[in-house]
Amino acid sequence: MNIHGQPHRSIEAEHATRSARIIDQTFLPHQVEWRELHTMEEAAESIRVMRVRGAPLIGATAAFGLFFALREDASDAALQKAYEVLHATRPTAINLRWALDRVKRVVEPLGSEQRADAAWEEALAICEADVATNHAIGRHGLELLRAIQAKKADPAAPMNVMTHCNAGWLATVDWGTAISPIYQAHDAGMNVHVWVSETRPRGQGASLTAFELKEHGVPYTLIVDNNAGHLLQRGLVDVVIVGTDRVTAHGDVANKIGTYLKALAAKAHDVPFYVATPVSTIDWTISDGIREIPIEQRSDREVTHMPGLNAAGVRDEVLITPAGTQARNDGFDVTPAALVTALVTEHGAVLATAAALRELRGLM
Amino acid sequence: MNIHGQPHRSIEAEHATRSARIIDQTFLPHQVEWRELHTMEEAAESIRVMRVRGAPLIGATAAFGLFFALREDASDAALQKAYEVLHATRPTAINLRWALDRVKRVVEPLGSEQRADAAWEEALAICEADVATNHAIGRHGLELLRAIQAKKADPAAPMNVMTHCNAGWLATVDWGTAISPIYQAHDAGMNVHVWVSETRPRGQGASLTAFELKEHGVPYTLIVDNNAGHLLQRGLVDVVIVGTDRVTAHGDVANKIGTYLKALAAKAHDVPFYVATPVSTIDWTISDGIREIPIEQRSDREVTHMPGLNAAGVRDEVLITPAGTQARNDGFDVTPAALVTALVTEHGAVLATAAALRELRGLM
Repeated sequence: MNIHGQPHRSIEAEHATRSARIIDQTFLPHQVEWRELHTMEEAAESIRVMRVRGAPLIGATAAFGLFFALREDASDAALQKAYEVLHATRPTAINLRWALDRVKRVVEPLGSEQRADAAWEEALAICEADVATNHAIGRHGLELLRAIQAKKADPAAPMNVMTHCNAGWLATVDWGTAISPIYQAHDAGMNVHVWVSETRPRGQGASLTAFELKEHGVPYTLIVDNNAGHLLQRGLVDVVIVGTDRVTAHGDVANKIGTYLKALAAKAHDVPFYVATPVSTIDWTISDGIREIPIEQRSDREVTHMPGLNAAGVRDEVLITPAGTQARNDGFDVTPAALVTALVTEHGAVLATAAALRELRGLM
Repeated sequence: MNIHGQPHRSIEAEHATRSARIIDQTFLPHQVEWRELHTMEEAAESIRVMRVRGAPLIGATAAFGLFFALREDASDAALQKAYEVLHATRPTAINLRWALDRVKRVVEPLGSEQRADAAWEEALAICEADVATNHAIGRHGLELLRAIQAKKADPAAPMNVMTHCNAGWLATVDWGTAISPIYQAHDAGMNVHVWVSETRPRGQGASLTAFELKEHGVPYTLIVDNNAGHLLQRGLVDVVIVGTDRVTAHGDVANKIGTYLKALAAKAHDVPFYVATPVSTIDWTISDGIREIPIEQRSDREVTHMPGLNAAGVRDEVLITPAGTQARNDGFDVTPAALVTALVTEHGAVLATAAALRELRGLM
């Protein structure tokens, strides 16, 4: 999507040097800084410290990481080691493993002199497939938005969509998952307005989703996460759409911490709660999300400190609690399938049930 | 309670000068700054910009404000004007009106030469009554905590209490409402641990509740507001206790934005959700909290900027969103009575129902 009117992807291949350019998202929304990745370690570090984040973008970055490793050393041992390093960067995202497995499956049968080329092509293919997938998710999501709008007392009134964290184009290669239907609705002339939850602790809503929507010209209002229940109670939300980092075969959804509270509140007020997800984010090997999805424990510092721009316009960080305060920082929570109205995939909307997901899997 | 080992109240009368000393809470938790109030305007400003906050402390400060006004001019017109200015400082807190009415009722029948003295005495009495009330709330709350602990599989395991915002001694004259039972449990040797929600946008949990508990030596862990659902889902919360700014005659509860989400999550996991409140916070004139309690709209800036201490140890503020972002900032939300396990008052625990509250009122 656009930055300052120029179309961009969140990860761009540089064919001449066989490197990848990423937007260093830790600088957003205050600065747009591009960063070149040339080595597996650079790719791993970028995932680990969240220069790139969002399940699909993590997967694409890891695929380039495997290519960088194989360019240095295409042996089985090097492949295995790179796989492990990249896989260990973030424990929750299922796409990370999916993308690594996809590249590994392609290169493993090949001779070592062919592996790097094949990995490069596969990384590019993963990027193209992600863009196509997200565009399809947006198309199916748009149909759901139109159906909700048709039922509104005043169909010309703004369609109020609430989202959480950043499941926009910056979380994917392009379009985004949860925000893809919003972009398509806006571009189609629908009067759509987005409630952007800031998404503490890292504030990906306040920084990334706000940045994206602003650059694309979609009307939005920033709220604190605490405000979600109130707005739902007052009838100011027509639909909630979020992304996900992992869906189980029974439809449980892991997503950024705080998603579960929004799902509970949407249910209490009979507002549809959609989870936009590529099929690759479904982990067919597990069913009970609460028992089986590992929840990443992140640093205290993300809770006790807040980064931003100071009055002098310089990036800085402030301590918001008494010095020495201990914090707990669960990165994700799990929303049980019963609270999910539907999963919006590239193959259409699917109920978050074991039976519906089994059927979806059978179609593929 | 204690600061650096010294007992203090959040508002202290200076008898010699007939002034009041408050802790300027906008400097907490990084600095303990006392501020002298001598005029009605100073009192009103302190309430308006939240140097003092919390329903009972607002009430006590307003009572001193009325005294300051009457010391200058004890006419009916001055009384009425001061009442109006003080009443307009914060729209949601019921105690504000309650305290102003209490002083007004005492001074109105008096001659103008007696009014200031009577107002001073009444402000002192309001403070003493608040301390006694909060101590009683804590005693009754402690019984509830003991009952919950007795039912735990391992009664020696920590009792995990979740709270929201700051309903501790800094929100009252002393003891606090929601935190009073926690102080009493801790002092009685109970193994109590508090989940402190940071409470965006103003972060009263991260700053004030964390500060209080730390100074008193009560074990606590700071979390982002988004984490509440996850901890409840994982069985890591035994009870939720919050304060309130206004309770309706039917038991609906207005409290800091985000309370409603915690109440929904507590209900979903069958965890008791208690609201600690002096009877003076009950507004007998209204029943339906969602329709009848006005919700204060606060400044965008509280959402888009975050104050704290920078790396140099200087108080600063950072912008956390793209420049020019529009925000919505509802100060409070309303939790319907059906989600409230009980109200914990100075007269004991009371069901949040019209019938139980009618009975409570009859006893008084």
